[in-house]
Parts: sequence; structure tokens; C-alpha cells
Amino acid sequence: MRPIITAFESSPDRGRGLARDFRVRWAFEEVGQPYDVRLVSFDAMKQPAHLALHPFGQIPTYEADGLVLFESGAVVLHIARRQPGLLPEDEAACARAVSWLFAALDTVEPPIVELSMTAILERDEPWYEARRPMLEQRVRQRLAQLAARLGEAEWLDGAFSAGDLMMVTVLRRLGGSGLLDEHPSLAAYVARAEGRPAYRRAFADQLAAFKQSFGIDPARSM
Amino acid sequence: MRPIITAFESSPDRGRGLARDFRVRWAFEEVGQPYDVRLVSFDAMKQPAHLALHPFGQIPTYEADGLVLFESGAVVLHIARRQPGLLPEDEAACARAVSWLFAALDTVEPPIVELSMTAILERDEPWYEARRPMLEQRVRQRLAQLAARLGEAEWLDGAFSAGDLMMVTVLRRLGGSGLLDEHPSLAAYVARAEGRPAYRRAFADQLAAFKQSFGIDPARSM
Repeated sequence: MRPIITAFESSPDRGRGLARDFRVRWAFEEVGQPYDVRLVSFDAMKQPAHLALHPFGQIPTYEADGLVLFESGAVVLHIARRQPGLLPEDEAACARAVSWLFAALDTVEPPIVELSMTAILERDEPWYEARRPMLEQRVRQRLAQLAARLGEAEWLDGAFSAGDLMMVTVLRRLGGSGLLDEHPSLAAYVARAEGRPAYRRAFADQLAAFKQSFGIDPARSM
Repeated sequence: MRPIITAFESSPDRGRGLARDFRVRWAFEEVGQPYDVRLVSFDAMKQPAHLALHPFGQIPTYEADGLVLFESGAVVLHIARRQPGLLPEDEAACARAVSWLFAALDTVEPPIVELSMTAILERDEPWYEARRPMLEQRVRQRLAQLAARLGEAEWLDGAFSAGDLMMVTVLRRLGGSGLLDEHPSLAAYVARAEGRPAYRRAFADQLAAFKQSFGIDPARSM
């Protein structure tokens, strides 16, 4: 049985690979695990059938052999522990890679999400311009610390790991803000990850799913 | 060698067990692992010696047998995987407990932290009162979803796990907001966890550390 994950039927990111199913798609590709995707509408995400899989009504979920998981961090970690390719065999190095996975989600991502959510939800509020520099500063602090630790290294701790995978998906959410470009080493780190064959396959697949939802023939419009 | 963790020398929570070292202390107590604590000042947290342990200059860190970890989620998971007491032996149940640990950190905690940070950093800003209902609503949505899933159960998925440990530490950050009390089942869930002997030992230890930093004799002031 191939694992089944859920993803947005109509992703708000319009196929840019920023939705959280992308992390799981990429992880599957890195370890060479075939999988299936079930697309869910925003309405379906609020219904009992989906809430039984994901208590908070989000995507992605993971189903395989009767096991149901939710949270992209948990699913990526589950995939990484079951098959080689995303975590070092050495126990200490493996634990350090997991530290980076949590750092991506719990220290680097929150200010980035807050900045982008504010730009979507509060752009027309009178306080938007006044608050924006403060929110950008929180992101800048994390980026500077991350760049200081990465230095000239290719990846965060030795070989590419689930920690890098998660960190890159988080940094990509900075999109057109220009903040990532203030650190050429971080922009290069993201570009390096985007060049991986597994990344490219996962990206093409989520883009095809988005285009299909909108009736665009992927073979003709790429 | 006992593991060594770092904690605030002068915790901003004034010994209420809300700093992130508490999660790790509690995990150690649940599995029966003795540990040592090194207290660090806010100035020391910005220095190279601490940044070598934690790239983002935060607490807690974990050191044992040459291994250095950071991020409370990663450290709790590391402790839970090495010794019995915090993760089910059954592989599927274990993976589900890890889903809950990530849900606590990545879905429930961000709106709670945003609400409390705003109350600290933006209370005097002209927009504070206007934004607060929106921030509270984000927390309320997560609490309602969590309460719906918990139902009448004692813990989130079978026996008490690292997922419950993390969720309870996240919910405790709601403090005096009154939001937790809107869901008596969640308030009871937190109270049930606070009654665990391991929780009580961890709480007493962090309180003693706080009082010692301020020259208060714990034996006399408790």
C-alpha cells in the first residue's frame, strides 16, 4: 500500500510549492517512496471526515497501513526514520538533524509566517505600515543567526538532512520580501536545495496538481 | 555522565514554569533521568560560548557525552526515545504521539505566543486593543478544535505521552488570559498533568532555581 497524503485542492500559493504538503512530497522523493495524493477542498477540510484525520482541519495528513498522522514536521520525521536518505545513520548526527528540523519549525518559521499573514490579513489596517518594520526585524534576527551558523557550509550539519529540507521550505516562504537576499549565503543555500532532483520532482508534481485543479493542461502550459 | 541543560539565570516568568527548560526538566522526571542545570544570563546567551550550543541564542540546550542539542521539542523527543515513559512501545502509537508533540509546537503554540508577546511588546501601542480580539480568536479556534478531539478522554491518544507533556506546557502559557477556562475539559486536562509527581518535582526544581537566583531561601519562602 502506497501512503496517501492530503493536499489543497486549490492551493492559495498557486503552485509555488509553499503549501505544507510540499515538505512531505519532497521527503518522499528524497527517500524514493511512491505515494498518492488526495486533494481536499477548503470546505471538505472542515468536515468530520477530514477532522478525523487532522484535528485542526489542515493539510497535510498521512495514511498508511491503518496509521494516520498529521503535522508536516511529524510526517517528514516519520518518513525520514523509516527509510534512508534524510537522516544520518550515526545516532548523534541524527539527533542533531532533528534539532534543525525543530529549529526550522519553531524558531525560524513563526516570525516568517507572522510577517506573511499580516501582509495578507492586515494590509489595509491603519497600523500595518507601523508594525511591519518590527515584524521584519524579528525575521532579520533569525536569518542573521542562521547565516552565522551556516557560514560557508553546504548544509546545516554535514550531509543534507530532514533538517535542511524543513529549513529550506521555511525560508522559501519569504518569497518576494527581499529579506532572504540580504544574506547571499542563505539564498544560495535555498537555491542549492531547489536544484536537487528530488526537490524538482516534488515541485513539478504539486504544480501539476494545481494546474489540473484549474483545468490547465500541464503538458501545454509549462 | 548526567546530561546538562541550560535555563534562564533570571527567568522572566518568575518561577511559574513557563520557560522552555521546564519541558525538558519534566521529561527527565517522567523517565527518571537525573540531570544537571547550568543557569545562563541574558548577556551570556548572546556570547559565542552559548551560541556554539544554540545558534539562535536561546534556552534550553542539552549536552551529554559530547552530543549537543537545542530546541525544546528536539530535546524532549530525544529523551523520550532513549528511555521508556514518554512514548508508547507500539510503533504506530509512538508516531501518533509525535504528531501531537508537533501539533502542540506548530499549530497550538504560535497563536498563543503571538497573543502573549503582543501583550508584552505592544500594550501601549494605539492598535493594541483593536488587534487583540483577532489574536484571541485565533487561539479560541485552536482550543475549540483541541477540546473537540480530546472529548472526555484523559490524554490525547491513549496513555500520557510526550505529546501531552508538550501540549500542557503550551496551554499553560495562556496563564491568566481566561481563554483556557472557556473549555473546562482542557482546564481539567492541564490540572491532571500538573498533578503528576514528575511534573511537581520539575516545577519545584525550577522554582528553587529562580528563588536562588534572587537570593530567596526556598526553604523559608515556599
